[in-house]
Amino acid sequence: MRSDIALPVEPVFECEHDVMFFDTDVGGVVHNLAYLRMIEVCRTRLAECLGMPLATMAEDAIYPVVVRTEIDYRAPGKLGDILVTTGRLDKLERSRFWVAFEMRRKTDDALLITCRQMLAVVQMPEGRPQRVPKVWREKYPQLSA
Amino acid sequence: MRSDIALPVEPVFECEHDVMFFDTDVGGVVHNLAYLRMIEVCRTRLAECLGMPLATMAEDAIYPVVVRTEIDYRAPGKLGDILVTTGRLDKLERSRFWVAFEMRRKTDDALLITCRQMLAVVQMPEGRPQRVPKVWREKYPQLSA
Amino acid sequence: MRSDIALPVEPVFECEHDVMFFDTDVGGVVHNLAYLRMIEVCRTRLAECLGMPLATMAEDAIYPVVVRTEIDYRAPGKLGDILVTTGRLDKLERSRFWVAFEMRRKTDDALLITCRQMLAVVQMPEGRPQRVPKVWREKYPQLSA
Amino acid sequence: MRSDIALPVEPVFECEHDVMFFDTDVGGVVHNLAYLRMIEVCRTRLAECLGMPLATMAEDAIYPVVVRTEIDYRAPGKLGDILVTTGRLDKLERSRFWVAFEMRRKTDDALLITCRQMLAVVQMPEGRPQRVPKVWREKYPQLSA
Repeated sequence: MRSDIALPVEPVFECEHDVMFFDTDVGGVVHNLAYLRMIEVCRTRLAECLGMPLATMAEDAIYPVVVRTEIDYRAPGKLGDILVTTGRLDKLERSRFWVAFEMRRKTDDALLITCRQMLAVVQMPEGRPQRVPKVWREKYPQLSA
Repeated sequence: MRSDIALPVEPVFECEHDVMFFDTDVGGVVHNLAYLRMIEVCRTRLAECLGMPLATMAEDAIYPVVVRTEIDYRAPGKLGDILVTTGRLDKLERSRFWVAFEMRRKTDDALLITCRQMLAVVQMPEGRPQRVPKVWREKYPQLSA
Repeated sequence: MRSDIALPVEPVFECEHDVMFFDTDVGGVVHNLAYLRMIEVCRTRLAECLGMPLATMAEDAIYPVVVRTEIDYRAPGKLGDILVTTGRLDKLERSRFWVAFEMRRKTDDALLITCRQMLAVVQMPEGRPQRVPKVWREKYPQLSA
Repeated sequence: MRSDIALPVEPVFECEHDVMFFDTDVGGVVHNLAYLRMIEVCRTRLAECLGMPLATMAEDAIYPVVVRTEIDYRAPGKLGDILVTTGRLDKLERSRFWVAFEMRRKTDDALLITCRQMLAVVQMPEGRPQRVPKVWREKYPQLSA
């Protein structure tokens, strides 16, 4: 956790992915696992904005770990679509937090995916749980219901 | 859908996967996406037992499509672990059905993953929904709550 | 193939990827398959610059297909590294072409990967080979040795 | 490296994979990366037969690392195909070795893929190269040309 980063007013990150061949399957649409890889990119970027850069994680071996995923596949993406993924820090607990995601097709803003993930911050390789960063609770008090 | 297959008494399938390098990440444990690939293998095998072989799907372009996944990561798998995945047809609706999964480490039967997926049977590429096979409702009436 | 695109003077494309968790394995470095996924992104972008956008491919079912890959792993990437992939149209034959790739770590320009891929342009699903676009041979005569 | 394993007369391993949805792409065939994942499974199994089980690797952090891949895509696999992958220890050098692979469709024995990979045995995370196991050179002298 870096303490020298100014946290954003809204804990939100948005990123874009073009659907590649390796994202699709023989059904002609994006494979259900591929969306979760794009969501991981968005989640990792969001964590960076919130003071958890990848390089620091690798050094400290303190990682946010997914403990639950709920994902709804509402409409299919296709080869060449540009998918816009928005991730939002949604809820803070003592040692866990939720991030909510939406994925939309860029051309028509159609909603393809909604997803929620619960994460724990753990010290690896032991898997020892850490507290959710105090600065998050201070900056976003509305998320600690 | 093949009509010449005798449906099993219990709509359950179990399969094993050894954890490979490509299943792991730098945290030293199995990556959260890798479990879902193993679950897809189990789900596909279960579908075969229930009269939906892959080869027929490819010809007819009628596929079971995942519309929702809920997955809980309870304990981590590691390189070289043998993971036993059990999939069970869990609930039948008019045009959707649920499959429930458990993943356990073979050596000590530790529960690593629980997961539920809701699927729809669709005609691709239009995505037109089909009825859940009638033979499933007849053979497993207890699943149509 | 779009005929209304002005081909670039040099048939080269460069793109960047941050190394994510799903790119790494338990060895602590980038998994050998992950580099090839990044190379596919670079190759697809290069194809777009050269008049073959993904959306058109999906409509026409005419795809560039990899028929050979040679890849040398010279030094390992790590979590959080930014990898710069450069792809260059390297050689044109009648119905096949080569693309050459280099991947470097952004911070120190260290060479991690060199790769060459031979591609054929085919009409799917029959797999019927097509001629390499005439405009490529006209624009880059030095590549048709 | 386990010293209590009897090395096989021929350093060969064969395994089967059914082509799953996640192996395919929108072109209707197996994606080029999926074959390399199946090849990794075969290579890992072969290494086990030759005294390098995954569990031991993870403990010792001594891994065989791919340093070069050459792969030719000769004919495409499809959803539901059973692919038979054969891996053979092919050549031993001082600190590197080659494995050669063939992938065939089970139903008609059609050759889909040929591949060669050069590997080094390294101590991670430093990446320090180790000697190729002496027992391999003794058991398979014909491979040390």
